[in-house]
Amino acid sequence: MVILTLNCGSSSAKYQVYDWDAKDVLAVGVVERIGLEYSTIEHQALGKDEYKTQFSSPTHKEAIELIISILQDKQYGVIDDISKIGAVGHRVLHGGEKFKKSTLVTDEILKSLKELVTLGPLHMPANIMGIEAARKVMPNVPHAIVMDTAWHQTMPPASYMYAVPYEWYEKYNVRRYGFHGTSFLYTAKRASVLLGKAPRDTNVIICHIGNGASICAVKNGICVDTSMGLTPLEGLVMGSRSGDLDPAILPYIMNLTGVTSQEIDTLLNKKSGLIGLCGRSDRRDVQAAAQAGDAKAQLGVDLECHRLKKYIGAYMAEIGKVDAIVFTAGVGEMGGHIRWCSCSGLENLGVKLDKKKNEIAHCRNAEFEISTDDSPVKVFVIPTDEELVMTEDAYALMAGTYDVHTNFHY
Amino acid sequence: MVILTLNCGSSSAKYQVYDWDAKDVLAVGVVERIGLEYSTIEHQALGKDEYKTQFSSPTHKEAIELIISILQDKQYGVIDDISKIGAVGHRVLHGGEKFKKSTLVTDEILKSLKELVTLGPLHMPANIMGIEAARKVMPNVPHAIVMDTAWHQTMPPASYMYAVPYEWYEKYNVRRYGFHGTSFLYTAKRASVLLGKAPRDTNVIICHIGNGASICAVKNGICVDTSMGLTPLEGLVMGSRSGDLDPAILPYIMNLTGVTSQEIDTLLNKKSGLIGLCGRSDRRDVQAAAQAGDAKAQLGVDLECHRLKKYIGAYMAEIGKVDAIVFTAGVGEMGGHIRWCSCSGLENLGVKLDKKKNEIAHCRNAEFEISTDDSPVKVFVIPTDEELVMTEDAYALMAGTYDVHTNFHY
Ligand SMILES: Nc1ncnc2c1ncn2[C@@H]1O[C@H](COP(=O)(O)OP(=O)(O)O)[C@@H](O)[C@H]1O
Ligand SMILES: Nc1ncnc2c1ncn2[C@@H]1O[C@H](COP(=O)(O)OP(=O)(O)O)[C@@H](O)[C@H]1O
Repeated sequence: MVILTLNCGSSSAKYQVYDWDAKDVLAVGVVERIGLEYSTIEHQALGKDEYKTQFSSPTHKEAIELIISILQDKQYGVIDDISKIGAVGHRVLHGGEKFKKSTLVTDEILKSLKELVTLGPLHMPANIMGIEAARKVMPNVPHAIVMDTAWHQTMPPASYMYAVPYEWYEKYNVRRYGFHGTSFLYTAKRASVLLGKAPRDTNVIICHIGNGASICAVKNGICVDTSMGLTPLEGLVMGSRSGDLDPAILPYIMNLTGVTSQEIDTLLNKKSGLIGLCGRSDRRDVQAAAQAGDAKAQLGVDLECHRLKKYIGAYMAEIGKVDAIVFTAGVGEMGGHIRWCSCSGLENLGVKLDKKKNEIAHCRNAEFEISTDDSPVKVFVIPTDEELVMTEDAYALMAGTYDVHTNFHY
Repeated sequence: MVILTLNCGSSSAKYQVYDWDAKDVLAVGVVERIGLEYSTIEHQALGKDEYKTQFSSPTHKEAIELIISILQDKQYGVIDDISKIGAVGHRVLHGGEKFKKSTLVTDEILKSLKELVTLGPLHMPANIMGIEAARKVMPNVPHAIVMDTAWHQTMPPASYMYAVPYEWYEKYNVRRYGFHGTSFLYTAKRASVLLGKAPRDTNVIICHIGNGASICAVKNGICVDTSMGLTPLEGLVMGSRSGDLDPAILPYIMNLTGVTSQEIDTLLNKKSGLIGLCGRSDRRDVQAAAQAGDAKAQLGVDLECHRLKKYIGAYMAEIGKVDAIVFTAGVGEMGGHIRWCSCSGLENLGVKLDKKKNEIAHCRNAEFEISTDDSPVKVFVIPTDEELVMTEDAYALMAGTYDVHTNFHY
């Protein structure tokens, strides 16, 4: 049996096929340009040639039909029959307060998701379209949804409430939700294993730093705080997002420049962060420019690390006794200089990085301990695996073995 | 000789008269309702009856004239002649990047202040009116300005820059400025004395918690970071201000409710913080309500302490090795429960509060050490004295002995 996972964006659909019995990824791929004059697919099956083509996909339905047909293709496929698909796992951005864990899709669940569109106006419509299209194409297979926010639903009110008019929470659901939940769940569990501790005894701070970046405080195995908020804009300095700032900057700039609230939202999400500071967002480019003497790129590196360090300290204070700091996602796994800058100077708080081990940790498929042997707080690099969480959740929901995530391990 | 200090708000003027030779406060008072149909003055001279009256003060000029005349009054006054006033110190909200220290007022300096009005549209016009009026009333006395922001001008770019489009900094001066500078300067110096260290060797975190609240990281005697930003809205949970939040909440709420950018600015400054959460802002009321079982008041206390604890941790990470945490201003000096909640659980980071000492520290004119004897990080309660800093700066500028603040001590 295989498990298919789907991650539908507004014009794209990423997928992975996982062989449940062999515990192996059989194929990955992506359809892009959905809804445009032509669409593209890139498909890669284990041990086979890559397959690329253009086709017509006015909606997510045609995209998913093509994916299913390529999966059964003689030359490029990985299953001989659609009935081999045991379950489908769908990534969903926002579960609001309603979804505290993954769940099987029903008509009622879809209705609930639609009520959450305001909370994720850019992603939720595409997520929902993907689910609806996939259910049409595979009506007899259980579909599961895995939310980026669910992991964070264990936060206490002091972490998730904002000090704004209380009715904003009651009427408009304004609160901290947090994102990157599947990544935090996976890496928290892996950190428990590396520490040789039960999840419920594990206190870690996890830095998920990719294009988007957020950080999570995990106490006794569950999330107690995270840096992204109502939306993925808050918190760390990111590729193109500002992260934290004085909220009064928005009316100040709107007043001086005449931009609308939608425009400033876009500026803060797409033209800020490292892009806003130095015109680049890929950390390799930023770092190279900084090393070549570009002062704005250096400012970008400094700001990113400064913010990260502040959050690490904040979460150490919140958690009280931290076992380990974990770095994950593209920058966390590959960006040794950012790990170094953000952890240096924390020796008094028990964090001692090993310079050499940190330099060596530079790949996306192996786990590393990069702290010194005598560091009271361990530092790990753990490649994230969000697809695996989606796969396991979809399987467990289908098989009836799904449990609260605190009982899982990886 | 006496030094007069003036703090002019849009419809008020607070003042203090300080006897330079006796090192003592001679009188304090406040004019309110300036510009309304009638104005009021409350004046209290050392060892004399309080004087209150109503009078007409269409502008700050009449207010300052009345202050000067009462100061010379036979019954309520404290000086026999205006020539006894050696210098006047004016509190000014915003010094932008231009003012890194206090300075004597000239026509050119006034012009520079006027260029900074956009950065403090609510306070700066009143501050400037007060200076102009006082110069008219006392043309032969040196006037000095003392800015809330100047102390923070030593911050490094990683602390003061936001990850927003770079041109917002160049064109619109968007950066972190910080406020409460005179309070931080004074308490940082006093902390050095209590620690028995030279200011330049002193690393402290200072929590100024009054109606407005901000926190400052001091490394080697100078400010390296602070929680208020472009405006006094950012950072801690305050009486009526939100402090930190996901910036995307502003366009989200504007979009859903139709409020304008000015309206949301007002909501976040006046109807948020503790007021927004539980309808009260005086911490005595909030605490009493929480103890009486009001869940929203308890949420307010929890949020305020949670935010404070996060900042303490963040600044510990930033500073590396902290000598002491200092609490000051109304809540910092009087609010033992808030000090307790925000410092408890920090034992692993070296902060151990003494429960009893913390309870005893409950007054506005004595300094306390409230940490345990073996606490690696000391915790102090230090009553702030912003008027003293204004007085000393005004005197030193007049006398030509003014120096960079890092060379001062109190
Ligand atoms: N060698 C490297 N050093 C630093 N950063 C890297 C390196 N390789 C990749 N990255 C960063 O990883 C980012 C992508 O992270 P990833 O987690 O894959 O992305 P996403 O957030 O889109 O899922 C890239 O934008 C790049 O900045
Ligand atoms: N006993 C007390 N316990 C807790 N908070 C107190 C107590 N007394 C005064 N306060 C707080 O101090 C605040 C005023 O602080 P202060 O620094 O004097 O004000 P401001 O910020 O206006 O200068 C009040 O709003 C009140 O919340």
